[in-house]
Amino acid sequence: MRTNYAVGVDVGGTRIAVGLVERKGRIIKDARRLTPKGGPFAVVDMIIDLVEEVITGVHQSELAGIGIGIPGQIDFSRQSIEFCTNLPLAGVDVRSLVMSRTKQEVTIDNDGNLAAFGEARWGAAKGARDFIMLTVGTGVGGGMFLNGEPYRGSRGMAGELGHIVVELEGRMCPCGGKGHLEAYLGRAAIAEKGVEAAAMFKGRAILAQAGGKIDDVTAECVIKAAVAGDAVARGILLDCGYVLGRALVGFVNIFNPKLILIGGGVGEAADFMVERAAEVMQAEAMAGRRDVKVAQAVLGNDAGILGAAALSFDEHDSREGMH
Amino acid sequence: MRTNYAVGVDVGGTRIAVGLVERKGRIIKDARRLTPKGGPFAVVDMIIDLVEEVITGVHQSELAGIGIGIPGQIDFSRQSIEFCTNLPLAGVDVRSLVMSRTKQEVTIDNDGNLAAFGEARWGAAKGARDFIMLTVGTGVGGGMFLNGEPYRGSRGMAGELGHIVVELEGRMCPCGGKGHLEAYLGRAAIAEKGVEAAAMFKGRAILAQAGGKIDDVTAECVIKAAVAGDAVARGILLDCGYVLGRALVGFVNIFNPKLILIGGGVGEAADFMVERAAEVMQAEAMAGRRDVKVAQAVLGNDAGILGAAALSFDEHDSREGMH
Repeated sequence: MRTNYAVGVDVGGTRIAVGLVERKGRIIKDARRLTPKGGPFAVVDMIIDLVEEVITGVHQSELAGIGIGIPGQIDFSRQSIEFCTNLPLAGVDVRSLVMSRTKQEVTIDNDGNLAAFGEARWGAAKGARDFIMLTVGTGVGGGMFLNGEPYRGSRGMAGELGHIVVELEGRMCPCGGKGHLEAYLGRAAIAEKGVEAAAMFKGRAILAQAGGKIDDVTAECVIKAAVAGDAVARGILLDCGYVLGRALVGFVNIFNPKLILIGGGVGEAADFMVERAAEVMQAEAMAGRRDVKVAQAVLGNDAGILGAAALSFDEHDSREGMH
Repeated sequence: MRTNYAVGVDVGGTRIAVGLVERKGRIIKDARRLTPKGGPFAVVDMIIDLVEEVITGVHQSELAGIGIGIPGQIDFSRQSIEFCTNLPLAGVDVRSLVMSRTKQEVTIDNDGNLAAFGEARWGAAKGARDFIMLTVGTGVGGGMFLNGEPYRGSRGMAGELGHIVVELEGRMCPCGGKGHLEAYLGRAAIAEKGVEAAAMFKGRAILAQAGGKIDDVTAECVIKAAVAGDAVARGILLDCGYVLGRALVGFVNIFNPKLILIGGGVGEAADFMVERAAEVMQAEAMAGRRDVKVAQAVLGNDAGILGAAALSFDEHDSREGMH
């Protein structure tokens, strides 16, 4: 029997978003709430509450299942959460807990993988057989789609594209590494440069975005000032675009992809940063592979929900032998 | 009918090596000659001569075909040579030329891919489903084996693992890029450091390897002095191992492989360099993926011949529907 809906769950450090998704990728109902502080069970309970909220009135037989994206390192084959920096979910069997309460099939995956999955199914990478996606936000993550499917590596943890060394003796990275891409491109790095600029007269447009309070300067203040046309803020993001572009050189030489998608909150907001990165990459990538297209992801805030739902449809269909 | 032999051809900048290979991976006959200077046809003619030399006495029906590894960028699906830095083969239809003269099926591929293919079939990566291989020699290349097969990317040019940026404003790379891994690890980089050291008293062991002539100091002099126990030469290669290790951090975070193989002339000679790289990687790779094994490739000079033959067997078998 053909199921009509899947539930996609996007568990973020700040917010949990759940959507009921049709087979064509339309979210017909959603529910979003701030991620609760406290232990793992508060998080799991909220996931379950939100899921029950969106599936009210849907018949069991119409549901393919539930997909859950987690901002951590997932061993996909074991469906276990190995590490989770921003939430207390490491080692918690989220899948079984949600399954036992909702009586639905549940599949969990890394949020970066799922964002790529969503874009491949319904977004900017529709039909692409080989692409990589970088998500630039608080962290820098990503996902790889190779030979028409997500590539997860030997333990399901592949795709940490933000954690490559771009500077041998470079800035410390939140992961504990040194000189990683994320250390130059994540929100913390942008905010730091924003604060630096805002302390001087030239940074007044950035400061204004923070209501004049230097302690309130965030990456978003820099992005907003840049989008409004401020040259200093734009300069900060163009510098980020340069570093991103240099990293893309490596990805293009390694993967020879047709398409690179840049998503995440920062990546989707700052088109000029992405354009700069594409120019830098084009100038230095090895010959023969410069036909690669660099584009912004399009699913925005819904990417997580949609990717998780797409995974859930696929898992259901392969259980039913529909693949 | 089951064929017993394939011919593997390894076209190098210095030497062309051809072998007749059994299904179990034994080279039962080989022929090697210096790569001729001059135009592309001198090279193609030599390939054909060497192939004919090794297949003398073998019945046509016993041969699966000929595999040829080329040190250049190959569009695998078109079987065309797009770029070739060290040999005049770009745009030359090597496959058709060799086919028409030998009346054998011919398949060409990038030499880095084939080295990985050979190790996967008969070498240090036997049975590994997911591994990456770096070849460290004059250049730094590589190959990826993902989900049990070579990954070639959208145009067949994937795997240039030596051309990632490890230093934003770093050394110029032979490819024209800046701060690439190859610029820190290839023979030219090692030789340069060797010359620097040999100009001073502390570098006397390196200088001795060059017969006392500083102009004759090569990467091999550094490696030989290091293997003989000289601390300065060893230091140069340990520094290379550090840079290699920092690059491996990125590969492990991106690919989550079970195995990383280090091959190539330098990679196979300098075990302490590889050990240092493994230590550096282990200390910095993201948690959960440190079970990766770093090992030296084992097929040595024969890797190219064996990989090319393995490819040829596979192509034959899939033509015959044996896969």
